[in-house]
Amino acid sequence: MSDPSRPPGPTSYFDVRTLDSLEPRKRDLVRRRIDALGPAYRLFYRDPLEFVRGSGTRLWTADGAEYLDGYNNVPSVGHAHPRVAAAIAEQAATLSTHTRYLDARLVDYAEDLLSTMPDGLGHVMLTCTGSEANDLALRLAKSATGGTGVVVTRNAYHGVSTEIASISPSLVGLAGLPSWVRVVPVPDVRQVDDPASFGEWFAAHVQGAIDDLAAAGIRFAALVADSVFASDGVFPDPAGFLAPVREVVARNGGLYVADEVQPGFGRLGETMWGFERHGAPGAPFVPDLVTLGKPMGNGYPVAATVMRPGVAERFGQGMRYFNTFGGNSVAVAAAQATLDVLRDEDLQGNALRVGSRFRGQLDDLRADHPRIGEVRGAGLFLALELRTLDDEPDEALCLDVVNGLERHRILVGTTNVGNDALKIRPPLCFSDADADRFVEGLDAVLTELGA
Amino acid sequence: MSDPSRPPGPTSYFDVRTLDSLEPRKRDLVRRRIDALGPAYRLFYRDPLEFVRGSGTRLWTADGAEYLDGYNNVPSVGHAHPRVAAAIAEQAATLSTHTRYLDARLVDYAEDLLSTMPDGLGHVMLTCTGSEANDLALRLAKSATGGTGVVVTRNAYHGVSTEIASISPSLVGLAGLPSWVRVVPVPDVRQVDDPASFGEWFAAHVQGAIDDLAAAGIRFAALVADSVFASDGVFPDPAGFLAPVREVVARNGGLYVADEVQPGFGRLGETMWGFERHGAPGAPFVPDLVTLGKPMGNGYPVAATVMRPGVAERFGQGMRYFNTFGGNSVAVAAAQATLDVLRDEDLQGNALRVGSRFRGQLDDLRADHPRIGEVRGAGLFLALELRTLDDEPDEALCLDVVNGLERHRILVGTTNVGNDALKIRPPLCFSDADADRFVEGLDAVLTELGA
Repeated sequence: MSDPSRPPGPTSYFDVRTLDSLEPRKRDLVRRRIDALGPAYRLFYRDPLEFVRGSGTRLWTADGAEYLDGYNNVPSVGHAHPRVAAAIAEQAATLSTHTRYLDARLVDYAEDLLSTMPDGLGHVMLTCTGSEANDLALRLAKSATGGTGVVVTRNAYHGVSTEIASISPSLVGLAGLPSWVRVVPVPDVRQVDDPASFGEWFAAHVQGAIDDLAAAGIRFAALVADSVFASDGVFPDPAGFLAPVREVVARNGGLYVADEVQPGFGRLGETMWGFERHGAPGAPFVPDLVTLGKPMGNGYPVAATVMRPGVAERFGQGMRYFNTFGGNSVAVAAAQATLDVLRDEDLQGNALRVGSRFRGQLDDLRADHPRIGEVRGAGLFLALELRTLDDEPDEALCLDVVNGLERHRILVGTTNVGNDALKIRPPLCFSDADADRFVEGLDAVLTELGA
Repeated sequence: MSDPSRPPGPTSYFDVRTLDSLEPRKRDLVRRRIDALGPAYRLFYRDPLEFVRGSGTRLWTADGAEYLDGYNNVPSVGHAHPRVAAAIAEQAATLSTHTRYLDARLVDYAEDLLSTMPDGLGHVMLTCTGSEANDLALRLAKSATGGTGVVVTRNAYHGVSTEIASISPSLVGLAGLPSWVRVVPVPDVRQVDDPASFGEWFAAHVQGAIDDLAAAGIRFAALVADSVFASDGVFPDPAGFLAPVREVVARNGGLYVADEVQPGFGRLGETMWGFERHGAPGAPFVPDLVTLGKPMGNGYPVAATVMRPGVAERFGQGMRYFNTFGGNSVAVAAAQATLDVLRDEDLQGNALRVGSRFRGQLDDLRADHPRIGEVRGAGLFLALELRTLDDEPDEALCLDVVNGLERHRILVGTTNVGNDALKIRPPLCFSDADADRFVEGLDAVLTELGA
């Protein structure tokens, strides 16, 4: 059974000790689920949800209740998008095979994807999950540099496998990090007095981490950075602040791995890729490696590692690479359809337009609800902090808001190291009307909570 | 470009130095592929194949040539099986979401899958790939035992991620193994005089490896064993030989991880799971962990780690587990349809019947072709060794046979440490007529090669 050792405190997850309070059908299903899946799985919400159908930004439960999805970034072009579903259906009924045979559509897709990247990023390798993409990026970085040292941010999440959990302090805790990993602070511009100095401040921390590795006799291999720092608390701004970091990484002989699993594929609105925000006219930001995942196939398990060609040279000489399902025919069909829809429906543009207005609306709510703290983000990746009356981070309020929004049939997540901010990250077809509904719901919940 | 450092010797892969000899359209596609995917990918065959359609045991190329598939084990219930394709199509058009919401079909599938396992295996966790399943099994084993030492066979392959490549000597070589891995010999019964002593002989090697770990101060965590030893050369027999190994593992406080990614889901004919061959009446063989992958969704990326409930206890207390795509709604639909077809079409029974007859036919070919060595295997997982006139392993002949069969439009792979055996591992709907065609083709190729 689940985790009786954990303290009872506030949570946005289901607590197994409340099992008997669920209605009978749900109680039986949850009990069977715990019996079959074991103790390591969690369910969202104090009263877990069972969805049976989705479309666009909407999800429906078994008993017909309609929810607005402000949380799920995987079905990025919309739940059960008909074009993606049709591409998957057609290919699954025709052929699903692997990369050791020729497949013109795999090559077409690889070229299409690379055409969205800046010059200098020339190869793409296909995996099934973001974890596998980050794992491959680290293997390539270690092979290319001969180093093993990795630098990540304080509350980074890069994936769930052994190697990648090792560089994910949000999952394993600082105490769980291996000797070859160093952390730098959450890149929160409020930590410096002058925002113009923030990039240098953050770069100095990265240099310090590299020096600390060197002092321990560990050669620097890579900085791995989520371009929107999603689990650290969503920090896309100020645009450009990563440019000095990029230089520090190169100067120290390491590789810059841009983890675009969450920010990529247009979510940040202004740019297709999150790292692009940190370039300047005439000085594009070009990582050594870029990793892609979640939204790439709108739910089909497909992910990728993109790289400067030189990075793969040594690896390719010593090692064949084969991933059974990575780049299979159906994965390619799903990814191509998703990319086509993203462009044809201008969802990046939608993320920019709707996201900007939405962010303004959330900011305006503060006039009536002073316990709303900072609202930040880019495009349709937003964070909204919640504060106590004394202006301290308020995790309990944040989790009450998450569960309160659920009662208003709106889905949302949490972020920040202290779990005190809403993480708003809907499908990219989120409309102005969806944003209005979200804002009205949040207004109502905060009023109900007296906040 | 590809690997110019590798010696020119015989190969069943495409050699990039022969690029200009391909017909123009294929040459251009291969060149674009190398440009886009980089140097680490390989293509099967001296003249690579491009398939555009599949059905049952058949694949068709772009120019209409029909191939018999004697190689691909992922589309286990048949290429593009209509029931699996329909289940994927329906679910993809309805909803694809994750395990943090309730999903009755996920629970139904988990229970159904567990019902095929022996008593004592009570939980299943869903991942996307066999590599992820083995990674999770190792994390669970290390967490449950407090140890880190792992024992594998001489030419094992368990997956492609950093952690799992580390326990895959067939991928990284013996020199590439980390300090916490020990290897035991390929379990080839020909290494002992008395087959009845083989289990004890192999168990003694496992004990020796555990002792060697202990002497280095490394606590034993797990033996990881492919139940058919596919990359070692296909060694299912003598049935029962793993029972003493199971005991040695338990006696030393480690866990037995049965890697069923290749042998599982009925392929070996007599049993649903490869490890079951090694039980006896009244003494079933029960691993601590079982990993599943390739055929589980007939090509859809879905995999799993099954376990004794106690194994997950400590892990579940300290760690939440979430895999974005693992156990998503479409993966569950694909896996359930695959399991239903496997049963409804009695493909395990087909593997037993067709595989037994097929193996006899291959054995009989030796009368006309004395360079055929041992033919072994179970169900539809067979190996056929090729030998020189002096009865030595003959890799060159084996690779010529692979390419010769391709000219006869039959697909097959290779195995054994020395790459001198055909690996025959077709979709489980392989028929007697398919076997006849394979045997006729092999007869013809060996005749052409004067072997």
